[in-house]
Amino acid sequence: MLRYPMNLIAQLAVEARSRVLFVVLDGIGDVAVGGRTPLEAANTPNMDALAEEASLGLSTPVAPGVAPGSGPGHLALFGYDPLHYSVGRGVLSALGIGLDLASNEVAARGNFATLAGDGTVSDRRAGRIPTALNEQLIARLQEEIRRIEDVDVRLYTEAEYRFVLVLSGPGLGGKVRDTDPGRVGLAPLPATPLTETPEDAKTARVLNEFIRRATQVLHELPEARRHTPPPNTVLVRGVDRLPDMPRFGEITKMRAGAVAVYPMYRGVARLVGMELLPIDLSGTGERTPAKLDACRRHAREYDYIYFHVKKTDSYGEDGDFEGKVSVIEEFDRSLPELLEAFEPDVVLITGDHSTPVPLRAHSWHPLPVLLRGPHVRRDGRRFTEANCRAGSLGHVRHVDLLPLVMANAGRLARFGA
Amino acid sequence: MLRYPMNLIAQLAVEARSRVLFVVLDGIGDVAVGGRTPLEAANTPNMDALAEEASLGLSTPVAPGVAPGSGPGHLALFGYDPLHYSVGRGVLSALGIGLDLASNEVAARGNFATLAGDGTVSDRRAGRIPTALNEQLIARLQEEIRRIEDVDVRLYTEAEYRFVLVLSGPGLGGKVRDTDPGRVGLAPLPATPLTETPEDAKTARVLNEFIRRATQVLHELPEARRHTPPPNTVLVRGVDRLPDMPRFGEITKMRAGAVAVYPMYRGVARLVGMELLPIDLSGTGERTPAKLDACRRHAREYDYIYFHVKKTDSYGEDGDFEGKVSVIEEFDRSLPELLEAFEPDVVLITGDHSTPVPLRAHSWHPLPVLLRGPHVRRDGRRFTEANCRAGSLGHVRHVDLLPLVMANAGRLARFGA
Repeated sequence: MLRYPMNLIAQLAVEARSRVLFVVLDGIGDVAVGGRTPLEAANTPNMDALAEEASLGLSTPVAPGVAPGSGPGHLALFGYDPLHYSVGRGVLSALGIGLDLASNEVAARGNFATLAGDGTVSDRRAGRIPTALNEQLIARLQEEIRRIEDVDVRLYTEAEYRFVLVLSGPGLGGKVRDTDPGRVGLAPLPATPLTETPEDAKTARVLNEFIRRATQVLHELPEARRHTPPPNTVLVRGVDRLPDMPRFGEITKMRAGAVAVYPMYRGVARLVGMELLPIDLSGTGERTPAKLDACRRHAREYDYIYFHVKKTDSYGEDGDFEGKVSVIEEFDRSLPELLEAFEPDVVLITGDHSTPVPLRAHSWHPLPVLLRGPHVRRDGRRFTEANCRAGSLGHVRHVDLLPLVMANAGRLARFGA
Repeated sequence: MLRYPMNLIAQLAVEARSRVLFVVLDGIGDVAVGGRTPLEAANTPNMDALAEEASLGLSTPVAPGVAPGSGPGHLALFGYDPLHYSVGRGVLSALGIGLDLASNEVAARGNFATLAGDGTVSDRRAGRIPTALNEQLIARLQEEIRRIEDVDVRLYTEAEYRFVLVLSGPGLGGKVRDTDPGRVGLAPLPATPLTETPEDAKTARVLNEFIRRATQVLHELPEARRHTPPPNTVLVRGVDRLPDMPRFGEITKMRAGAVAVYPMYRGVARLVGMELLPIDLSGTGERTPAKLDACRRHAREYDYIYFHVKKTDSYGEDGDFEGKVSVIEEFDRSLPELLEAFEPDVVLITGDHSTPVPLRAHSWHPLPVLLRGPHVRRDGRRFTEANCRAGSLGHVRHVDLLPLVMANAGRLARFGA
């Protein structure tokens, strides 16, 4: 059964020729402590021009006081109530690096990590080993560990210390606790089933055996031993099976494309059935030129484009005010080209969650929202947290934003007679 | 099964060293009729200083248009959705005067009242008889009425015309209609079971017999006959058994203390498992010095302090603008001492419901909310109804306030990956 707002959208969605640009500046919301927020401080002539014709508002991602992860934050933006729909990070990472998951498969995120002599974790990321070393280690582990019981084990490099583990076999459950203890100085936890089903017990058993063997292999590998600190064990997080999600495109009657370079965000877009615009993923960082190039070549094939900007969040987590400002300004410079490439009728700009510089973490603060379209009430003010307080959109929740953009795009029929 | 927000809080609450001060100015919200509200008119330098560093917002107690009693208003503030959790006033009064209720007991609020010759109620409070007379009447009634059927009857003075009745025995139900007709000129109603269970039928039968005998006793008592108007009957309201409430402290991982002097508020705090700070209850009225003294001696033993101010509501009910202003100013003068005693990291100030002076009654109007903490967006404006309209907190509901203070106190973990 569909939840709000997807139940309403399924009932009211109509075809139209309009285009919706849905920009997620990851972690954009901030808090000014004795000064300005990054959004206030940034020089954003292009967003200012857009804001001149836009409604502003605030949006709470999940519920007041709740600081969401990027998964729940994005699900809410895409119209999936995260209090109802949940998905493990392992699935998002697997989808994000392009894997397909079958119904008998379980995915997990792995970290290469460092165990100290006393059996506690001394580095949860093994000094953020380079991706090339990750690829070497994965190749060796895959050679040594192909099967546990009647379960196939497949390993994939994500980047740096991160990899994806896929278990494939009969009777595997998806509810198993993370083995990452969450901070250094503690021993890794055993994989423990979160329910009493034999399926979750089996997955936990296989994972524990995988971790045991992987630790043994890594302990003896010269490539691992040469690195300081040595990647001599693995931590497993976000175990899950592919959940059964209603398809975004079918419900909204919009062909939806995603422009995102980081696996997590590519994964959540694929999870709901969006197509990924083909982007040259070589290089690192925001890769704005590659994203714009993909938009120029393909955006007009879609009705709805999800455009993701990552580094606003990263600099928030680093407590780097100037860095966050610079990413906002970089996005602002790219905005005219993005608008020209897609020619959207409706533009929404917000974030999945706030990542305030003073907090260096995801937070619960409502997000500023900018909505431009042919029929919005024009607030005529710059796009800042403070101006959004008294904007025409009022204070909504992330799950409300999809119906709002669809209404503004002429894609929702009247409700009732 | 827990309801929102307690289900989320149960999942996300973490221990921390932070302290939360939760101030309830009872009935604070008001409506300006051609002038200012009491909050606007009051001279509040200390709240103004707090507001300078605070987020403001509006909060609807239960649902738009719903004017709640103090019970539902407080339950919502404490994170218990009053549309789901309900409790009879009899239970709150019983807990509030220090009684414990067993699972086979039923509590009700009683009023001494005056019957006219024609059998209608001519005064629902028997001219607000003094507490001393109440105590005499209760002693005589208790002598005469100890047991009805196999049910023990216990009577306790609350104050003035109000008493508490506890029935103790096998097979008693808690769902029985009030006998108070609600206004003068009508006959008292019989106690009627609200369900068809034999338990509620038994409670109703016992209550009707109690009322019959009490009326007979009072009719002949010289102490009662001497008073004008004579307290010659009793009205019974708020019949209920102790509901099974999730424990506030267990769910929030905060040790919670209550600073309140009126029984009703002490009762609702005890109902959810808060501890009452020991207060010298001699004297009458707001008893601010006694409350501050309790805070100085004990507040630091707690993570969360609920601090209740009653008279803002009383003056609202009396339509006394200047009186309401004076209570706000008295609270404001006490604020520095309160803050010094507890040194809270997070301060929230609001009310359980509005009691606008022009209405002389509880109302549905959203409450002004002030939230100060290390990570709030600073609105920098005075704490008034009008300024709260465009505050950074937006427009929330009372059940959202507990997650908000906990997030600001660093007591909620991230939701999802």
